[in-house]
Amino acid sequence: MSKFDSTHERILWRGLEIVSERGVTGVSLGGLAERAGLSKSGLFAHFRSKEDLQLEILRFAEGEFEREVISPALEAPEGLPRLRIFFGRWLGWAPRCGLPGGCPFAGAMFELDDLAEGPVRDYLVESQRTWAVMALGLIGEAVALGHLREDLDAEQFAWQLSGVYLAHHVSQRLVRDPGADERAHTAFESLLVSARPP
Amino acid sequence: MSKFDSTHERILWRGLEIVSERGVTGVSLGGLAERAGLSKSGLFAHFRSKEDLQLEILRFAEGEFEREVISPALEAPEGLPRLRIFFGRWLGWAPRCGLPGGCPFAGAMFELDDLAEGPVRDYLVESQRTWAVMALGLIGEAVALGHLREDLDAEQFAWQLSGVYLAHHVSQRLVRDPGADERAHTAFESLLVSARPP
Repeated sequence: MSKFDSTHERILWRGLEIVSERGVTGVSLGGLAERAGLSKSGLFAHFRSKEDLQLEILRFAEGEFEREVISPALEAPEGLPRLRIFFGRWLGWAPRCGLPGGCPFAGAMFELDDLAEGPVRDYLVESQRTWAVMALGLIGEAVALGHLREDLDAEQFAWQLSGVYLAHHVSQRLVRDPGADERAHTAFESLLVSARPP
Repeated sequence: MSKFDSTHERILWRGLEIVSERGVTGVSLGGLAERAGLSKSGLFAHFRSKEDLQLEILRFAEGEFEREVISPALEAPEGLPRLRIFFGRWLGWAPRCGLPGGCPFAGAMFELDDLAEGPVRDYLVESQRTWAVMALGLIGEAVALGHLREDLDAEQFAWQLSGVYLAHHVSQRLVRDPGADERAHTAFESLLVSARPP
């Protein structure tokens, strides 16, 4: 597949497919070797440990997220238009990338939350923070341009936005509600109404 | 522990502890036998298969949820007071029951969504429906009493409420944000504001 520059990337994509369907703990070196058509020792040449592999897969997913969600948003005009594009591209980004399951980050957040401390869990908390900083940046732009009200609690707004995303994930992937997208957009618009300047 | 009427219930509780931390697919007959201090064949006498065990654990969890969340809500006056008690008891109900991890249903919804069809996934979709019917009932009471506006889209309200719950789960359990409860209550109140009668 021309999508990937290297064998290493092709392996990470196969790993991301597994994470998307079965979660981070669903990835093993043996299972991935089989899926990528490599020997287990061939795979060991690429990754020092299962943890190292899981971290690289999540970092790779972050790159896909940037291409599918962030870049298109940054091409839109600042403020509300950009926030709208961001939200619209965020919903269902993982299957749109070609992944067989849902958002690898959403899944991992409910999978690793109660597991032992470690670099993979830490990375996930950090990536949640990165997401929040990015969302706060977009909301801040919309406030600065007068699209959203000056006294908006941006952290609370971002927090509620993440809830809309998670509810959409459940509707879309578990319940398979054909109205999931519409529900999410309605929720987003009602958040915007409460954040409008007086 | 006097909490349980039988060995069978004690086993289900041990199983629910595992689900709460490691998810539904984290439960195996061998692992549970060890945790419950039984032989594997002793455990086989209680459950026909792993799937049967997982289903029974989730049904058992539903009973805990009813005791911890629904019953106290039903003791409150109908309408908004009941809806508030319901929401307040729903947040963090699983650790309050004594479980070591988070809500077994929230976890399973992100765990099983992309896995093969089967009775456990079906049960989860059904339990999501049961939750929605119950939430719609509480919202309907509040509308009938004039606490919420007559033209409220109750399905949308319930959908957004589930998003607040999921965002709270991530804040509380993954990020360990000490402000998670306050964020969730603020989000709930802003939902109520938008649902108030004119």
